[in-house]
Amino acid sequence: MAEMVKVAVDAMGGDNAPGEIVKGAVEAVNADRRVKVFLVGREPAIREELKKYTCDGDRLEIVHAEEVIETAEPPVMAIRRKKDSSIVKCMNMVKDGTCDAMVSAGSTGAVLVGGQVIVGRIKGVERPPLAPLIPNAKGVSLLLDCGANVDARASQLLQFAKMGSIYMESVIGVKNPRVGLVNIGVEEEKGNALTKETYPLLLNCPEINFIGNVEARDIPEGAADVLVCEAFAGNIVLKMLEGVSSVLVGKIKEGMMSSLKSKLGALLVKPALKKTLKGFSTEEYGGAPLLGLNGLVVKTHGSSKAIEIQHSVLQCIAFKEQNINEKIKEQIVLETS
Amino acid sequence: MAEMVKVAVDAMGGDNAPGEIVKGAVEAVNADRRVKVFLVGREPAIREELKKYTCDGDRLEIVHAEEVIETAEPPVMAIRRKKDSSIVKCMNMVKDGTCDAMVSAGSTGAVLVGGQVIVGRIKGVERPPLAPLIPNAKGVSLLLDCGANVDARASQLLQFAKMGSIYMESVIGVKNPRVGLVNIGVEEEKGNALTKETYPLLLNCPEINFIGNVEARDIPEGAADVLVCEAFAGNIVLKMLEGVSSVLVGKIKEGMMSSLKSKLGALLVKPALKKTLKGFSTEEYGGAPLLGLNGLVVKTHGSSKAIEIQHSVLQCIAFKEQNINEKIKEQIVLETS
Repeated sequence: MAEMVKVAVDAMGGDNAPGEIVKGAVEAVNADRRVKVFLVGREPAIREELKKYTCDGDRLEIVHAEEVIETAEPPVMAIRRKKDSSIVKCMNMVKDGTCDAMVSAGSTGAVLVGGQVIVGRIKGVERPPLAPLIPNAKGVSLLLDCGANVDARASQLLQFAKMGSIYMESVIGVKNPRVGLVNIGVEEEKGNALTKETYPLLLNCPEINFIGNVEARDIPEGAADVLVCEAFAGNIVLKMLEGVSSVLVGKIKEGMMSSLKSKLGALLVKPALKKTLKGFSTEEYGGAPLLGLNGLVVKTHGSSKAIEIQHSVLQCIAFKEQNINEKIKEQIVLETS
Repeated sequence: MAEMVKVAVDAMGGDNAPGEIVKGAVEAVNADRRVKVFLVGREPAIREELKKYTCDGDRLEIVHAEEVIETAEPPVMAIRRKKDSSIVKCMNMVKDGTCDAMVSAGSTGAVLVGGQVIVGRIKGVERPPLAPLIPNAKGVSLLLDCGANVDARASQLLQFAKMGSIYMESVIGVKNPRVGLVNIGVEEEKGNALTKETYPLLLNCPEINFIGNVEARDIPEGAADVLVCEAFAGNIVLKMLEGVSSVLVGKIKEGMMSSLKSKLGALLVKPALKKTLKGFSTEEYGGAPLLGLNGLVVKTHGSSKAIEIQHSVLQCIAFKEQNINEKIKEQIVLETS
């Protein structure tokens, strides 16, 4: 049997901690025998939540952490000072090899900073991108970078493309994933200084399947499997997706509730609508990995419920079993040597 | 009686030219007695279309133009060489004062280039932004810049904020419009080099009502009336809005057609849904003005139907009657003196 995949879960992070986090961790343990979870946070609170469930105790451990990093705290300071916080403890468990991966719904800033400062970058990786999976009309795309570090360089975008391709192929199972450069037009000469410099680098990279520029309008249709951009653009793509979806679904509900006739109709269409819209929800796809670190760090939504935590823990299995970091190292070494 | 507002309409521009363009021009003439339209393009084709309608002939003239600029043509070359094209003729009519404004659904690149090269910038305006109105949950926002010139400077973004505020207040009628800087976080220190430099300029500008940074997630909710950004970011905002809306509406139709039960329900909810979703369509709000030129240049969607052309022509009335360009001149002179 293969070795167990060990995942540290930040039990105190996010709006629904510790309740939903603990629930999601239990569900992950019950869903797959290959995973062992360490719930990191205030032991009494975690123990209280655990009373509600049954699961294989051998594959679920509590690691006490006294402190909690709040979302509003300046991340660099928080990571430096709160050594006994759940996030820092999770990071250290990845760093020292106790765990293969960690999952947190807590402060994005703290996760990004901690990932770089504590877990550390793979040698040769210039910048670790935050890479959420976003839904499209046909499936999912990996969008990177959506992190906090904007104003990226072309060489960094090339690394994003390589790391994203590896992740998409080995973890999500998309063969020869199509890499698109997010741009304001499809023609090669379109774009800003960064995309113009990046385009030839992607075009001449033999390790990826570059399909050219992708306009934002075609992203929701699924124009590419791996969407490469710097974090400012990536943030706008992700947040517009969430914002437009939320307003449109609201408008649809408003329309359905506007008359007796439409209310009757709503009763009949709701189950079918729920099903088709479910595939287009950003919450269905677990968390966003921070790629290129010495271990796997997964950031999930601050509003994560148990289902998202469960998915995030389970995605760590493929990440380890597929040796993603070994593959990244190979490609980055290839490039820098 | 106030002077007539004269608008040159590019009868050959867009996917539905000349049919829908001519129809929209006629509808505008019939809708408002203050407007006179010059239909610019191939006379026989225009005359053929005009046979289908009746309207006040005194307020509708044909101006023959032999050539047509195609969407795929390199814009700078097209503007320079095709002197007898409908776009260039429209531009010249604005430049020489025959018309106050022009409307085109043709090549965006040619309209942007022609606007700057032929119509010309107002003295002091560094860069004329393309400023579409985009729908939000409560009404509309003006998004600028969505043009072809990326990598803007902070001083240009400040001008966008001023011109956008004037347009939103005087043409759309939003009192004291809220100006937001499109950014990846709401805190002042968030963003890239450009937004960090722009923030204090907007904050210290007494002519505008700056409300701070706006995250893309809040744009569809209507977080600001005037959304300031450089064109690469603006393009992503606009195109994601269009792309996500289109995919979601497709998913909803798919869901409604998935079973007999849902089809029955669809019949009942459709009229109400259409009504609520109509307000959230990018086609409802006429064209995007190119602000800061010596005259008004309006670019509408390439896929424009008559209704959009009509709206675009009619929005030129407020633009002229409210002396928008005089107001822009005052503020830009104020700034540069």
